[in-house]
Amino acid sequence: MMTLATIAQKVDGQLEGDPDFTVDALSSIHMACSRCLTFYTGQIRPDKPTTEAGAVILKPEHAELFPMNRIIVADPYLAYAQASQLFVQESEQSPGVSPHALVSELASIGDDVGIGPFSVIGDQAVIRHGVKIGSGVHVGDKVFINSGTVIEDRVVITGSAVIGSECVISAGAVIGSSGFGYARNGRHWQRIEQLGRVEIGDHVDVGANTTIDRGSLDNTVIENGVKLDNQIQIAHNVRIGENTVIAGCVGIAGSTRIGANCRIGGRAAILGHLEIADDVDILANTLVSKNIVEPGEYASMIPAQSARIWRKNLAVLRKLGQSG
Amino acid sequence: MMTLATIAQKVDGQLEGDPDFTVDALSSIHMACSRCLTFYTGQIRPDKPTTEAGAVILKPEHAELFPMNRIIVADPYLAYAQASQLFVQESEQSPGVSPHALVSELASIGDDVGIGPFSVIGDQAVIRHGVKIGSGVHVGDKVFINSGTVIEDRVVITGSAVIGSECVISAGAVIGSSGFGYARNGRHWQRIEQLGRVEIGDHVDVGANTTIDRGSLDNTVIENGVKLDNQIQIAHNVRIGENTVIAGCVGIAGSTRIGANCRIGGRAAILGHLEIADDVDILANTLVSKNIVEPGEYASMIPAQSARIWRKNLAVLRKLGQSG
Amino acid sequence: MMTLATIAQKVDGQLEGDPDFTVDALSSIHMACSRCLTFYTGQIRPDKPTTEAGAVILKPEHAELFPMNRIIVADPYLAYAQASQLFVQESEQSPGVSPHALVSELASIGDDVGIGPFSVIGDQAVIRHGVKIGSGVHVGDKVFINSGTVIEDRVVITGSAVIGSECVISAGAVIGSSGFGYARNGRHWQRIEQLGRVEIGDHVDVGANTTIDRGSLDNTVIENGVKLDNQIQIAHNVRIGENTVIAGCVGIAGSTRIGANCRIGGRAAILGHLEIADDVDILANTLVSKNIVEPGEYASMIPAQSARIWRKNLAVLRKLGQSG
Repeated sequence: MMTLATIAQKVDGQLEGDPDFTVDALSSIHMACSRCLTFYTGQIRPDKPTTEAGAVILKPEHAELFPMNRIIVADPYLAYAQASQLFVQESEQSPGVSPHALVSELASIGDDVGIGPFSVIGDQAVIRHGVKIGSGVHVGDKVFINSGTVIEDRVVITGSAVIGSECVISAGAVIGSSGFGYARNGRHWQRIEQLGRVEIGDHVDVGANTTIDRGSLDNTVIENGVKLDNQIQIAHNVRIGENTVIAGCVGIAGSTRIGANCRIGGRAAILGHLEIADDVDILANTLVSKNIVEPGEYASMIPAQSARIWRKNLAVLRKLGQSG
Repeated sequence: MMTLATIAQKVDGQLEGDPDFTVDALSSIHMACSRCLTFYTGQIRPDKPTTEAGAVILKPEHAELFPMNRIIVADPYLAYAQASQLFVQESEQSPGVSPHALVSELASIGDDVGIGPFSVIGDQAVIRHGVKIGSGVHVGDKVFINSGTVIEDRVVITGSAVIGSECVISAGAVIGSSGFGYARNGRHWQRIEQLGRVEIGDHVDVGANTTIDRGSLDNTVIENGVKLDNQIQIAHNVRIGENTVIAGCVGIAGSTRIGANCRIGGRAAILGHLEIADDVDILANTLVSKNIVEPGEYASMIPAQSARIWRKNLAVLRKLGQSG
Repeated sequence: MMTLATIAQKVDGQLEGDPDFTVDALSSIHMACSRCLTFYTGQIRPDKPTTEAGAVILKPEHAELFPMNRIIVADPYLAYAQASQLFVQESEQSPGVSPHALVSELASIGDDVGIGPFSVIGDQAVIRHGVKIGSGVHVGDKVFINSGTVIEDRVVITGSAVIGSECVISAGAVIGSSGFGYARNGRHWQRIEQLGRVEIGDHVDVGANTTIDRGSLDNTVIENGVKLDNQIQIAHNVRIGENTVIAGCVGIAGSTRIGANCRIGGRAAILGHLEIADDVDILANTLVSKNIVEPGEYASMIPAQSARIWRKNLAVLRKLGQSG
């Protein structure tokens, strides 16, 4: 519960209505209650949106549509993001190091660090101040985790990885596992020991069950502000530039370098040893097999059709090369 | 070991042969031994199927093909499924709460609950009677798990998720992790705190290393009877209707609603903010990018060809839009 | 730190230069320091490669290009792989069984076994000599792990799985989870209990967060020398032949048999109940929906284009079946 005045201040908006109106919850426009705050970006189809909400965040030009308490801002979606921080329930993580955690005497643990039960912190690991580590986490020897980062439950960080400050690493992620490298030796495959590490910048988010392999010789590098969704696979020696955002289930093969401020859609696949420029958008389910040197939007995905029609298309597609 | 009579009763079939025949194992038709029970659905190519099995489950019209002990049923595959339950080895889970588990004093634990070593049960979590929880599981604060559900090893359930009764959550699954939501703030991405939760109905199965994110404002909802295979990614605010079955490696983006009784093939991808009707079949490796309003079969997958032929097809495909 | 003479002996190469030259690190050609050893395979574009390295592994025909300490070999990439083993830092795993592990009294533990904290070893599990098990690992009842195998942190091995010798199972992998099998029972899905197990041969590597389901009746089999990257999904009853190597994010559906010495590119999908011959190469992002009986290269992947051009191609593609 908090007042509309508090929220307006947080989002730097102009309050129209009752500053003492108390908000119970932040809600979507269709599910809102009379004590709810919602937001309106103008993108919803019905011309006259209706809502039960007691208050709404919106742009000046939409104010007339909502005859209730209002917070006027330039970017309602950003304001919603900012307001959402006020509604987070206090963390599950109790302060301090659980007596059921196993912390090496050779590790360095900063102030105000939380470490959950059944977590292991290895020799010479460095955990800076304010880091919160969940339960069942493995932080290997010589791993470095900078201040304010949150490591959720069951995460594995190994291979002397370096994690920046103010990151969130979600449950089940594996950072610093061995890259996939082999040399042929007759019919057998000779493993190549992976001697590099993973370096993650500040303000990076890593999704649940995402995997990031350590480098073979050089390092795998995730720059500041990168956001990675769930079940992404990042192979050894990859580099991802600042503020690039990658949706779920994307796979990036070894030694590829991706620029800054890219947006990569879900389930995209990017082959190895490529260079992708800055400001590139790759649509969902697209395969990238060559360098991309120009900013812009790239695609190769095929939307579903009725299977009956698709099979006819496919019959022609599979013989296209014969024509002419 | 059990008698054929016991099995015939379990599958509600008509026994022809020795009711006291003892069965050592349930087997596939080609690997069966003389003390094995197998089943025949009629789908195997060779006209005269041979088997070493001492007993077989089959349809009336195939009885003549198998001159051994028989159990006659209308649906041999369903009968096999039912019979399989008799052959499960007793669970690894010893009864009771392991002294090596950490259960909050503020949690509510029902009768006949098993909790494995190194598992953590948070404050105000509710675990109803008969729930079996493996080792190394994290059940967060305020999570609710209804009766008879099995939570396998290393599962993480967080974000106040609600799990129904008689579910099986396989190892490594992560339920209730943060959805992937950001608002642009100049070059940076402002995290949107995810305030909803995951609600899972009864008789739902979730595969190994599958991830289900909690909702941003509303909830992510998996209805009764849904079956999810391994390594599926379900984003925030998704809703999946009753008895829909989804094969491995499928990704479903945020806020999409999938109907009841759908079948979604492996590696399919479904974009965000879509509506998929009931009784829709989506073939493997298909991308869905628009609403599907009619029941039926949908596809966009391209089967492999010889790479030499495929490259010729591709050369034409990449210029199709120029023709005409 | 070691001498060039030691390395030359390890890779069975001919040393040209100072045998007492001490090497600090193995490095890529562009990042090398004066105390670094690098390797040159001839595949780098610039005709006159430059490096700061103090020593290089290369073929006889490239010796003239590098006027420093040299190790001459027939296959520099293989020699690099062999040399990499000399530069691995000693394992994090302290020897012996952690007092914080929980090992069943009914398990059999060989000599020189390491078991990390918060790991669980079940009844009748057999862990042979020299096996190293990380932290938070679950080894279920009756699981067998042969000598010299490494099980990294947070792995789950269950369902009476058999793991060969000298394997590496990376963090977060789940081996032996229940296969995905159901029989229709009206609108509901009747679970088929999965009674088989997973059998993994010797010298098999399994990547981080990869999942391998146990068989329904027969077993899921991974033969000797198979290498599996991260986030691969292998369904029940699959068989993978010797020395086949599979890149990240591949999915293989139930009961498919893959031959020996195949190479399967990242994100490929292989449908169920198929037979793939030996020596088959499947390119990245390709879908296999039919048997492959001839060795060779197979593909169905579509590389990204500018989205503007792709949409034009797509408009024609979606109506191909109408033409003619």
